[in-house]
Amino acid sequence: MGMTENKPVIALMTDFGLADTYVGQMKSVIAARTSASVIDLTHSVAPQNVLHAAYLFSTAHPYLPDGAVIVCIADPGVGTDRSPIAVQWTRGYLVGPDNGWLSYLVRDVSAANAESAETPIPEGWTVAALENPAYQLTPVSRTFHGRDIFAPAAAALAEGTAIEELGPKRDSLVTLAVPMPVDDGGTVRGQVVHVDNFGNLITNIPSAYLGASILVSIAGGEIRGPAQSYQAKPFAALVGSSGVLEIAAPNANAARLLGIGIGAPVSVTNQPRLVTEPPKP
Amino acid sequence: MGMTENKPVIALMTDFGLADTYVGQMKSVIAARTSASVIDLTHSVAPQNVLHAAYLFSTAHPYLPDGAVIVCIADPGVGTDRSPIAVQWTRGYLVGPDNGWLSYLVRDVSAANAESAETPIPEGWTVAALENPAYQLTPVSRTFHGRDIFAPAAAALAEGTAIEELGPKRDSLVTLAVPMPVDDGGTVRGQVVHVDNFGNLITNIPSAYLGASILVSIAGGEIRGPAQSYQAKPFAALVGSSGVLEIAAPNANAARLLGIGIGAPVSVTNQPRLVTEPPKP
Amino acid sequence: MGMTENKPVIALMTDFGLADTYVGQMKSVIAARTSASVIDLTHSVAPQNVLHAAYLFSTAHPYLPDGAVIVCIADPGVGTDRSPIAVQWTRGYLVGPDNGWLSYLVRDVSAANAESAETPIPEGWTVAALENPAYQLTPVSRTFHGRDIFAPAAAALAEGTAIEELGPKRDSLVTLAVPMPVDDGGTVRGQVVHVDNFGNLITNIPSAYLGASILVSIAGGEIRGPAQSYQAKPFAALVGSSGVLEIAAPNANAARLLGIGIGAPVSVTNQPRLVTEPPKP
Repeated sequence: MGMTENKPVIALMTDFGLADTYVGQMKSVIAARTSASVIDLTHSVAPQNVLHAAYLFSTAHPYLPDGAVIVCIADPGVGTDRSPIAVQWTRGYLVGPDNGWLSYLVRDVSAANAESAETPIPEGWTVAALENPAYQLTPVSRTFHGRDIFAPAAAALAEGTAIEELGPKRDSLVTLAVPMPVDDGGTVRGQVVHVDNFGNLITNIPSAYLGASILVSIAGGEIRGPAQSYQAKPFAALVGSSGVLEIAAPNANAARLLGIGIGAPVSVTNQPRLVTEPPKP
Repeated sequence: MGMTENKPVIALMTDFGLADTYVGQMKSVIAARTSASVIDLTHSVAPQNVLHAAYLFSTAHPYLPDGAVIVCIADPGVGTDRSPIAVQWTRGYLVGPDNGWLSYLVRDVSAANAESAETPIPEGWTVAALENPAYQLTPVSRTFHGRDIFAPAAAALAEGTAIEELGPKRDSLVTLAVPMPVDDGGTVRGQVVHVDNFGNLITNIPSAYLGASILVSIAGGEIRGPAQSYQAKPFAALVGSSGVLEIAAPNANAARLLGIGIGAPVSVTNQPRLVTEPPKP
Repeated sequence: MGMTENKPVIALMTDFGLADTYVGQMKSVIAARTSASVIDLTHSVAPQNVLHAAYLFSTAHPYLPDGAVIVCIADPGVGTDRSPIAVQWTRGYLVGPDNGWLSYLVRDVSAANAESAETPIPEGWTVAALENPAYQLTPVSRTFHGRDIFAPAAAALAEGTAIEELGPKRDSLVTLAVPMPVDDGGTVRGQVVHVDNFGNLITNIPSAYLGASILVSIAGGEIRGPAQSYQAKPFAALVGSSGVLEIAAPNANAARLLGIGIGAPVSVTNQPRLVTEPPKP
């Protein structure tokens, strides 16, 4: 009953920043091949940090429409022997270097978490190495596969090209070890995995670990929670929009106030509440 | 006679920055619901600064096509009892928290300027509280109504959903006191309300207060004007693109050179000109 | 055989940054006039640096589809007597101030390289001064021709308006001296023309000058090359994605490590290789 018709969507995430024309060149290549809508997820992945890309990707992909083609590029190995790949999965397509940016997704789908090893592919997924020159720019540069390989592949998939056309099937995917919280009986130990634009400290501790009353240890101090909004003082320990514990300061930058960032340890102790309802597991 | 057909437009303004996937998540939610064109007005509102959002919104909305859905989010109160709202006004739709970002527009429309109070709604406007869960994500997070409430509401309005569908009618709007220039007989006193990317100092003094020859007092110095371009030396005092006085330095950053920023006082004295034509009012 | 139909494309490049609503205002004006797709090439041209705009433009335009309308604005002379122009060339349309941002393109097309002089127009190009008020906003501000003149002209061209409609024909174009490498017999001397988001130092020395074995002198040191990827240590001297020599540091910021930036001298000596194949010219 909508006024507009469905249109293919290509979503881009890179570590290119916006100060150069790199993202613009990718969008130009795409626009020359398809009228698909292009969405920027972010271009501020920490430079060449594949694990940061994997984390940011995990926060965004659930909201895209089925069928979306997601391109993710943090690619320190461009020009080496790492493979450019496309993946067809249950919800659409994934395009980028085979270097581990799918680690969070693969973990969630298959509970695999090997140490930077090649892992079997989750059931129902198809992986293709992007080797067909018909879907590459000529010549392919050594340093910018985003423009020369990934953008034309994404455009082709958005236009309905079968993934098998793009290159030969692959039997494995590179995954990296994703930092996981550890529950050592009463205390859950995790870490900060992202600091957002507001200075909020995003951890890797999911809400399932948090009871109705918690004590968070971070940066040498303690915060009671969970808070109900960012306005709790002096710090708010609450479940953020990605379903994990985050630490914020009302109208201020918690990362700067606490002097910590990515990798900082965080632990949570669930506390008994003097109320009738039991803590939720 | 154009080659392209009219398409609904959704315009986004936030304080989210582009370093996270927050804006990308909103665009993903929108793309899953409509093929409307999405325009970024800016995502660099000063963090949690509703008055800055109100100012920036006032500079951009006049240029959007009729029917546009404008989403504006600087939302320090997310998760508290501030209301999420949509407004139907004479030129389209406005979506965001009811916290005052419409203050410049309401002032211009109805000359209301109460001190952070709830004000009557301008004639012909309809305001709805965004309470219908059919137009929200499930579950609604406590911290990211941009994704969970405002993006789906904007998509629904772009697709032609009646505003009454989104939730119950409201009778008032929160407005903030907008900094207004004061004319004390000969001298107009105002302030800097924005510093742009070039370091130009944008004031709240409209061109209507400026005669054919003016003397501007700022940062302890004086500048004659109005200049005809940014090339006036050492500083150009001229009417900028939003119709207000701004102070620039040719090929340089005036804010840095003068050592001032938002909130700095500015005054203007109209001067007699030794020419035949009288100063314009 | 694609699922989507061809749509006109407008590509934007400015020095406006994204912290203000300037780019958003241009996009609003465009959206009010056409449903053409809008692509951001970059908005981080060094402020008011026309030569930097010319360089960045040269890196991006080859990838846009034929027929694209490219708007490029680094415009220190806005409000002075510099002309706003549109150009119809072999691959589409170019819109912006007549101040030299087309210098790289004109050089490549016609090998012209006069010192900041007006040059004849390459064969087959049409240049129009944007003087027709029917394709301008009313009133035209003194400071923001991007919104008031260039955006409506770009939208008109995307909608199929003939360039002759926009204003009178012009017989010349302003060009600036483009920094060119000098070959003094065995050693090619050039300079850094751009530092990208990763800190890679982009030079003006094309791959045609680089043999199979080179010695690069930069920042008082020497680097052997060309490398095959960014992973060469301690520095990689390689042909980058624009076909020119660039210097990178693996997983690090070469500009910061070497303490140099735009304008730094670079020289290359081709070296004999102890292999059967001769160095490529």
